[in-house]
Amino acid sequence: MISMDSSENIVKEFKEHSISEFFKKNRQMLGYSSMIKSLVTVVHEYVTNSLDACEDAEILPNISVKLNRAGDNKYIVIISDNGPGIPKQIIGKALAMILAGTKFHRNVQQRGQQGIGAAGCTLFAQTTTGKPIRAISGLENGRAFSCSIGIDTMHNKPIINDIIDLKDIPRGLTIEGEFAMVKYDTSDHSVLEYLKRTALSNPHAQIVFIDPDGKEFSFLRSVDKIPEKPKAAKLHPLGLSVNDLLEEAHSSKEDMISTFLSNNFSRFSQGKVNELKELLPNINISKKPKELQWNESEMIVDAFKKMKWISPETAHIIPIGHAQIELTLKNILNPEFMHVIERKPKVFKGGFPFIVEAAIAYGGNAGKQLEEGYTGNILRFANRVPLLFDSGNCAITEAVRSIQWKRYNIDMDVQPVSVFVNISSVHIPYSGVGKESVSQEEEIIEEIKLAVMDAARGLQHFIHNKEKLSMYANKYKTIMRYTGQLSKDLASLTGKKPDEIRSTLEKIVAKHYSLESNVNDNKTQNATEEDIERETDFKESAD
Amino acid sequence: MISMDSSENIVKEFKEHSISEFFKKNRQMLGYSSMIKSLVTVVHEYVTNSLDACEDAEILPNISVKLNRAGDNKYIVIISDNGPGIPKQIIGKALAMILAGTKFHRNVQQRGQQGIGAAGCTLFAQTTTGKPIRAISGLENGRAFSCSIGIDTMHNKPIINDIIDLKDIPRGLTIEGEFAMVKYDTSDHSVLEYLKRTALSNPHAQIVFIDPDGKEFSFLRSVDKIPEKPKAAKLHPLGLSVNDLLEEAHSSKEDMISTFLSNNFSRFSQGKVNELKELLPNINISKKPKELQWNESEMIVDAFKKMKWISPETAHIIPIGHAQIELTLKNILNPEFMHVIERKPKVFKGGFPFIVEAAIAYGGNAGKQLEEGYTGNILRFANRVPLLFDSGNCAITEAVRSIQWKRYNIDMDVQPVSVFVNISSVHIPYSGVGKESVSQEEEIIEEIKLAVMDAARGLQHFIHNKEKLSMYANKYKTIMRYTGQLSKDLASLTGKKPDEIRSTLEKIVAKHYSLESNVNDNKTQNATEEDIERETDFKESAD
Repeated sequence: MISMDSSENIVKEFKEHSISEFFKKNRQMLGYSSMIKSLVTVVHEYVTNSLDACEDAEILPNISVKLNRAGDNKYIVIISDNGPGIPKQIIGKALAMILAGTKFHRNVQQRGQQGIGAAGCTLFAQTTTGKPIRAISGLENGRAFSCSIGIDTMHNKPIINDIIDLKDIPRGLTIEGEFAMVKYDTSDHSVLEYLKRTALSNPHAQIVFIDPDGKEFSFLRSVDKIPEKPKAAKLHPLGLSVNDLLEEAHSSKEDMISTFLSNNFSRFSQGKVNELKELLPNINISKKPKELQWNESEMIVDAFKKMKWISPETAHIIPIGHAQIELTLKNILNPEFMHVIERKPKVFKGGFPFIVEAAIAYGGNAGKQLEEGYTGNILRFANRVPLLFDSGNCAITEAVRSIQWKRYNIDMDVQPVSVFVNISSVHIPYSGVGKESVSQEEEIIEEIKLAVMDAARGLQHFIHNKEKLSMYANKYKTIMRYTGQLSKDLASLTGKKPDEIRSTLEKIVAKHYSLESNVNDNKTQNATEEDIERETDFKESAD
Repeated sequence: MISMDSSENIVKEFKEHSISEFFKKNRQMLGYSSMIKSLVTVVHEYVTNSLDACEDAEILPNISVKLNRAGDNKYIVIISDNGPGIPKQIIGKALAMILAGTKFHRNVQQRGQQGIGAAGCTLFAQTTTGKPIRAISGLENGRAFSCSIGIDTMHNKPIINDIIDLKDIPRGLTIEGEFAMVKYDTSDHSVLEYLKRTALSNPHAQIVFIDPDGKEFSFLRSVDKIPEKPKAAKLHPLGLSVNDLLEEAHSSKEDMISTFLSNNFSRFSQGKVNELKELLPNINISKKPKELQWNESEMIVDAFKKMKWISPETAHIIPIGHAQIELTLKNILNPEFMHVIERKPKVFKGGFPFIVEAAIAYGGNAGKQLEEGYTGNILRFANRVPLLFDSGNCAITEAVRSIQWKRYNIDMDVQPVSVFVNISSVHIPYSGVGKESVSQEEEIIEEIKLAVMDAARGLQHFIHNKEKLSMYANKYKTIMRYTGQLSKDLASLTGKKPDEIRSTLEKIVAKHYSLESNVNDNKTQNATEEDIERETDFKESAD
């Protein structure tokens, strides 16, 4: 029962598709799934680009986000920044060509990595409202222009129209787009919450949000310091795959493999070149990199694994910073207690350095208020970008959940606790194109656990003291109730004045309890790798 | 402190990238993250394509999967099928060009949808071992050839070499590839488990697996019926977006919008055309579809929402089938009890029909055996494809977890229970490119809950009866202990023979308990939408 024309059919039906067509049909993969999430995704993509552009140009960012209602589940989004603007030559591709941009090929720590986000917004605007977006770009040289930008999805190319040169426009980029199939709300997964968290992780940014009712929310700068401009990182030999090395070699203009290695990779001294020579006497590392073969590249990568290396350079990883996190947590959550941990750089998969920062905030606006009482929440960030969705698959969630909170006398279910985690790296391994969760790399999970456990110990200590203080206060109050009667009884026995006796008694009681409350003040210790084994209980994922 | 050359820098750094380059750098998005998962992904992509190709050509599939060790974390994967093969003209693009294929543009229920999977495997082989894959294609016309296929990632184009015409090769496709950065194990997330589950959801397929130690596992066919060949579905008017309608109209060769509508969309009778005319008197639906404007398309889509429609056709959705699921569960899990539920077609987002099948199996090889005791597990499927990873974000997991199992006296933590769920649809909304989880659409989650709750009721009933029977058996045993002594005592009182009395007593006791055990045999009822509200307790996702 075989249809005889299967082969012909297959050939006839066989077609090629552009990446724009693909994402038009699978926009949920870019973060455009529910209406609430879709609106957050639009804001996220533009704000992320604005922050990156400002940082790259060493500008303290001022960003404004405005939402106007334009119909049922339809909003106009207007986002402005004071960044360097986008030149006319590339604005179309930057905003309406998927997989084009400045970020994909550079080894630089930035929020964006892929050259997909902004073009995805244009695609989403166009496929839900039929309208192009509008951009106003004010450049540093004083020139400015506006234009409309659509996308030719069949060919993944921008369609630019209505270019108008402008005068007296301040530096920066403004994008205005109309989007349908979106919804604004004020839940935990809203634009407001997204911007609040963005402010939390970007204390150097000023963000103003005007909601669809015209209500203004300002997140002011907590620090005036421009973050360091991220620099391109050289790859560490332990982060190189056979294929990476081969491709880099084949596109290199160096004369010899040896100089190619020492000039292009991190920690590659002349000593290391000699060591490699000794390990691989059969490979001629004086020949041209272009002549490197796969099996040679394989042997070199294997040899790298046998050599001792200084850890990857970490100067190009720029964390938020201990003081900045404290300031901004205070600013935004105003907690009763907080404990911030900045860990030293670590490495995943051998060659990719990353830094984890974690904090626990307690009380104030920390945690999540329920109708009755509170519950804890996790504030996830990657390169300062808040991750609001897909928490289930994220290394941060996995790490925080696998901690045995009971050991710290913390109950994440009922206490007003916020756990803040930011991962900084040139190469954040996101699980999906929508970049809403960090892939569950073992080394990253462990490092997050160490950081959070360390912060948890601080909170444990605080809660312990708080409870002890409250216990003493109760005892103090109870004992004090007897001082009146006791003073009178002692007075009638001794003939002394009851007020004097009372005052003495009260002093004794007060001194006693102020002493005792100071007992438990030994310093908390830093978590070590051994703690992890002892304190945790990795659960297998269900299914 | 603005660097003056930002604009120039941006222009200079601005680059375009191919989709192959993108996935080369982000292969975790295609399922190539951990070494164990990467090997499952390779097997999954090829097996999925084989099953689709066989179904399309109406062939009962015979598939063999063989793994050979080729070094440290390096395996040769050889997968053969008896499908129609792939013609020479397109084999390169089919196996080594991302976003090319027969599936992306057709409205047909198939396992593959995107034209990414097989090319992703070639990309993964090449970037981990430097080697192309090798294909042997035996076509229906008796012709056959073999060739090697690599991928030019810069241009997303196949590189075909060593084409050899062959004779006396049976029909089918064999692919042989060498992959590094992969690992074989026998865990819950292994190739063996993947194939076992594939057999579970494809009872018409014969799958033979030879593991790296040469051990053979055969999953034989449970049914000899070739599943219906999936047919292309017309879109339902309620599933149309403004943009879809406009694009379809602009590429249509019909003379009038009215005939374009009635010929291209499901349930579009002449009556509906007239109804539309009345609702939109200002739109001339006799003009050419090519002349349709965005605002008109918007008005038409809005009007569709006001019209009453017959539900979408469901003939093109092919579920596994009640009897087939029972057979295969019996075959593979051999459970003590099972209850299979096939729900009627439902619709998500207004226009996309889907069918949920669910089953609960208990005892036998159901559930997951732990060192001590058991735990329940969830077997997730979409269009018969097992979903092994990313359970956290999946509509199926969410639905099963949100059920209050206590109400059914089922404890998923300790009982040997397997919950089986298969979603069939032309448009499965996957959360990511790797297609490892189903997006959490509310209508899909609710429908899965109804199905699983229904199956749970069956198990509840079974366990209840089992407990009752065991209770009766205990009582019976206890009472029987007294019959001996009682018979003797009664005999000495009455003068009758103790054996006679004993036999009568035993009959009375036996009759009593066999009667009582039949009491609770009323039929379980089907779940309704109201049950959901009553019985469930949607938990907000953490974070």
